[in-house]
Amino acid sequence: MDKKYKRNQRIGALMKIFAEKPNYVFSYNYFSEFFNAAKSTISEDIHIVKEIVSELDCGRIETISGASGGAIFIPILGKKEKEETLNELCDLFSQKNRIIAGGFIYMTDLFNNPNVVTNIAKLISTEFSDVKIDYIVTVETKGIPVAILTAQKLNVPVAVIRRNNKVTEGATVSINYVSGSSNNIQTMSLSRRSLKENSRVLLVDDFMKGGGTAKGMWDMMREFNADVVGTAVVVETLEPKKKLVDNYLSLMILTNMSEKDGIIEIKPNYKLLR
Amino acid sequence: MDKKYKRNQRIGALMKIFAEKPNYVFSYNYFSEFFNAAKSTISEDIHIVKEIVSELDCGRIETISGASGGAIFIPILGKKEKEETLNELCDLFSQKNRIIAGGFIYMTDLFNNPNVVTNIAKLISTEFSDVKIDYIVTVETKGIPVAILTAQKLNVPVAVIRRNNKVTEGATVSINYVSGSSNNIQTMSLSRRSLKENSRVLLVDDFMKGGGTAKGMWDMMREFNADVVGTAVVVETLEPKKKLVDNYLSLMILTNMSEKDGIIEIKPNYKLLR
Repeated sequence: MDKKYKRNQRIGALMKIFAEKPNYVFSYNYFSEFFNAAKSTISEDIHIVKEIVSELDCGRIETISGASGGAIFIPILGKKEKEETLNELCDLFSQKNRIIAGGFIYMTDLFNNPNVVTNIAKLISTEFSDVKIDYIVTVETKGIPVAILTAQKLNVPVAVIRRNNKVTEGATVSINYVSGSSNNIQTMSLSRRSLKENSRVLLVDDFMKGGGTAKGMWDMMREFNADVVGTAVVVETLEPKKKLVDNYLSLMILTNMSEKDGIIEIKPNYKLLR
Repeated sequence: MDKKYKRNQRIGALMKIFAEKPNYVFSYNYFSEFFNAAKSTISEDIHIVKEIVSELDCGRIETISGASGGAIFIPILGKKEKEETLNELCDLFSQKNRIIAGGFIYMTDLFNNPNVVTNIAKLISTEFSDVKIDYIVTVETKGIPVAILTAQKLNVPVAVIRRNNKVTEGATVSINYVSGSSNNIQTMSLSRRSLKENSRVLLVDDFMKGGGTAKGMWDMMREFNADVVGTAVVVETLEPKKKLVDNYLSLMILTNMSEKDGIIEIKPNYKLLR
């Protein structure tokens, strides 16, 4: 095919390609073939795209020069968008009708809504955009959408720790851990094949109260000789202040909650907005 | 802010915005404010973007005219890309080292790889791009990434059926079903709040052998008065030919498998390529 594209068209197409596959190195050769255009032309196009990304304050395009050169889009939320996104999330998570019997908060619909989870993923991937990560690790079930959409932004695979052993997982490593909130001993297992030894991992979960699950994930990672480079949770509770893990980042903090009075207060973690 | 964008920049930004939020109606007002530009200018830009999407054969932009007008990007894989994507998936899923003890195939890494799952989601959403869908429904665990990324393409929420009741789900509906492969009676539950009555749902799952799980999902949908508009599975087995559900679409078919001889044959479902 000898189809030729105009500059406008190449710029538009490039932005689509970068947006759909962030943190992935596309070679100039790839673009050159795709657009049936000289590398010098592509190089000019990338320069324009670089400016657009900077104007939009939505991250940066990095170029790798040389014969095997290429370009990569690293999405990073700008300060304004970060603040707006976080406030919007707090409004959604603190809707009064979320209180359910037993003093729990119903959040499942939010963790299963791709628009909401995309915003969560943008915030988490922004915080870890400069960290080398090989895998995102989560525990089933509610954290999986957050893990997969964050992984999509960072272009890394996910490893999902299961609550039960499954025959389709091959050899697994199982550990017992104490659930912080219920004080029950529970089991988690991770397939040997799902995580290479000595990897750098980012732990992700939906909710943290006592930190028992996160502690369990840390213990599991030790079995895989993994280096935990960060722990991100979407919502943490203010109480208990002392969690079972030390270094973690929450997006939002549940500061107050009363079933009787119908109160839920969820605030941004202001550390993110510094 | 009185920032002005050049046409090139607006085109690039528009493509990024559309690519990141497909099947979402953006109003001309939104773009007009975002770019600090007249609606007539935006309208011309959208026209150019429409042409780009058509040139790239990656779907279509639909415009809604009138005072509250807007534009929406409907991603649809072109024939060539569909065929390439499907063949690539078959190659990945039929790698010989996937055979594990008991005659199972290890696919977990693929279902947790955002690039692989994005391709699966593109194929499923292409098939259902003309169908009105309110929710995607799946059963935990392995189908969740497929469900959430397909939902992202179609801009609908997901409802996840759980294998166990959880306190954080509020009131749930539970049903028993017979797992086709093991003949065991199992339970699945779905939170009342996670799915509005009388919705149009697309069922999604990773794997289908006998169709017992899909049948269970159908039964569950009846409890919610839902209208099942489609069932999509990533891989189905050729045998048994007679499944417990009738209308479903698989992307790939496991035609042959022998643990002893180290054979896995997974072929595209050619119906997709017609």
